[in-house]
Amino acid sequence: MSVALQNDCFLRACLRQPTLHTPVWLMRQAGRYLPEYNATRTRAGGSFMALATSPQHATEVTLQPLARYPLDAAILFSDILTVPDAMGLGLSFGQGEGPRFAHPVRDEAAVAALQVPDLDRLRYVFDAVASIRKALAGRVPLIGFAGSPWTLASYMVEGAGSDDYRVVKAMLYARPDLLHRILAVNAAAVTAYLNAQIEAGAQAVMVFDSWGGVLADGAFQRFSLDYTRQVVAGLRREHEGARVPVIVFTKGGGPWLDEIAGCGADVVGLDWTVNLGAARARVGHRVALQGNLDPAVLFAPPEAVAREARAVLDSFGPPQRPAGADGQPGGWDGHVFNLGHGISQHTPPEHVAALVQAVHAHSRTQRAAA
Amino acid sequence: MSVALQNDCFLRACLRQPTLHTPVWLMRQAGRYLPEYNATRTRAGGSFMALATSPQHATEVTLQPLARYPLDAAILFSDILTVPDAMGLGLSFGQGEGPRFAHPVRDEAAVAALQVPDLDRLRYVFDAVASIRKALAGRVPLIGFAGSPWTLASYMVEGAGSDDYRVVKAMLYARPDLLHRILAVNAAAVTAYLNAQIEAGAQAVMVFDSWGGVLADGAFQRFSLDYTRQVVAGLRREHEGARVPVIVFTKGGGPWLDEIAGCGADVVGLDWTVNLGAARARVGHRVALQGNLDPAVLFAPPEAVAREARAVLDSFGPPQRPAGADGQPGGWDGHVFNLGHGISQHTPPEHVAALVQAVHAHSRTQRAAA
Repeated sequence: MSVALQNDCFLRACLRQPTLHTPVWLMRQAGRYLPEYNATRTRAGGSFMALATSPQHATEVTLQPLARYPLDAAILFSDILTVPDAMGLGLSFGQGEGPRFAHPVRDEAAVAALQVPDLDRLRYVFDAVASIRKALAGRVPLIGFAGSPWTLASYMVEGAGSDDYRVVKAMLYARPDLLHRILAVNAAAVTAYLNAQIEAGAQAVMVFDSWGGVLADGAFQRFSLDYTRQVVAGLRREHEGARVPVIVFTKGGGPWLDEIAGCGADVVGLDWTVNLGAARARVGHRVALQGNLDPAVLFAPPEAVAREARAVLDSFGPPQRPAGADGQPGGWDGHVFNLGHGISQHTPPEHVAALVQAVHAHSRTQRAAA
Repeated sequence: MSVALQNDCFLRACLRQPTLHTPVWLMRQAGRYLPEYNATRTRAGGSFMALATSPQHATEVTLQPLARYPLDAAILFSDILTVPDAMGLGLSFGQGEGPRFAHPVRDEAAVAALQVPDLDRLRYVFDAVASIRKALAGRVPLIGFAGSPWTLASYMVEGAGSDDYRVVKAMLYARPDLLHRILAVNAAAVTAYLNAQIEAGAQAVMVFDSWGGVLADGAFQRFSLDYTRQVVAGLRREHEGARVPVIVFTKGGGPWLDEIAGCGADVVGLDWTVNLGAARARVGHRVALQGNLDPAVLFAPPEAVAREARAVLDSFGPPQRPAGADGQPGGWDGHVFNLGHGISQHTPPEHVAALVQAVHAHSRTQRAAA
């Protein structure tokens, strides 16, 4: 575990330290757009969960994108719904459908019965983390992750994905006490789950608030951000003598950027609707920023992909050390290049190569010119 | 047509003139949550288009919510996709599915063939406007509407609704010239269509940029807002001696509020992710604001609906006449209460009654206390 890290660019950018280039990784970088992923999945029996619950398979697919592209970080192959599954809600992934829970949490009795799961039921995740760390052998850092308490709650109450969040929002407005109890259990579970990933070897962790952006102003703060803040406050921030950065990503969270930047995370993830330069000017002296290319850009030809990647880097601008509140130089402004959402299964793999190449080349050019 | 208007509260708020209460209407207020709507639709043969293409049926359903609730405006019963349908794209609504075009516009030849439709093919819409105006007899004003050039283009290129806008975004990044040509045709068509609605009697018009919020920062400005601005610039702003206010609503447009407020519209619609008080402070001296209750609030019991309606009104704050740039009193800050998106078909009708009652009562209380 204590193998020296050969590429610490990602961790340095998260901590707002200077880097030689802008690090890049992609949400869902190990996935269905890669033929080798589909081959492994077929060998494993075809199901997503068969892959995710096998440390050996999870290790194999986690490393696949790194064999193709010089990415600056690996991310654990798993799913945010492992936690409610471990609570006994009965997760399944239907053919061509999204996730589904056999036992959604919708009434007083189900809410009262909900408990932080025994972490032993998630042992396969921590084993995967340890196995991936070993296989990476210090090449790049490994990111662990979990869903935010609100995002997990929305699946747990709806019982599946939703396009209007009718059931969970009805609970929010009609019985906020029930939703607060679910969120408190989720926050405790997610905190313990991420700490166990850190102990198993995750060198950074990310909280995915994938559905925070569907909430109304006011409701977002009370039912999503407050609980994400609880999680962040409870995390181990150092392991094996190294700082473990925390990334919080709220899809659609642009309206609440200032508040999210104050939640205790080192890095705030942004989707593509946010102007990166404006976001940097507002909060770049407090947190690093991660994002924010529209994954749909990857459907365009490689030249267009490279052009749009350069536009994202130019929007953030060259690295610089801003003055602190006291007028003295503070930390550097940190940028981790990523998409603004997970990569699509329809992405041509060679377009990803063009993206990674462009990010590395152009960010070096920016530094040379600065 | 020149019957005196008995309730001009909505038009006054749009134009930032003082009102006795905050006017309220609801996007999709004539729709499937009303049993009388479903009865009319069944009588008309069951299809949405059978209703929309019959001025008599469209008039009947437009007036139905006004018979139940003291709403301050009526909105034409129609659909944004009437315009591409008139372009010959072959619109249909599958059972339980969304809209679908038989001839999506995906290649160079299809784009080149696209033309502003003969407005005679949309005569049924203008006839419906005239018929509804007559039936309203001056009770409340009638709002006409159209989709934004970008929102129409996304349907025209995708051929249906989409969750990733893959086809149209691939065109945007790979062949922006093709998309710009579609958008130019759409802008001309929408301008002519809305002007014809105004001439037929619409007393305000609204541009629905329902999918503007899926675009990346930068792309939104070039591919959506620029064309909405063209439409607004081409509209008749006065008819029968009265000013015709223009409302622009971009779902997910919060990140671009300042830019949208500069597009020439009188009113900017906001979804529920935007803090109404903060939006008012930023642009309330330039435009009126419309919104922004989460339609999911209407699934909660009437007391909760009333509480959340009051919270929206309190967020906007009491009406006041702000100072202009020259320090002299400018126009008033205008607020039109609405949802942040269309009302859900699963809404209990009695909850809507509670909403309208709460908006009228609380906004009068605010004025009395101010």
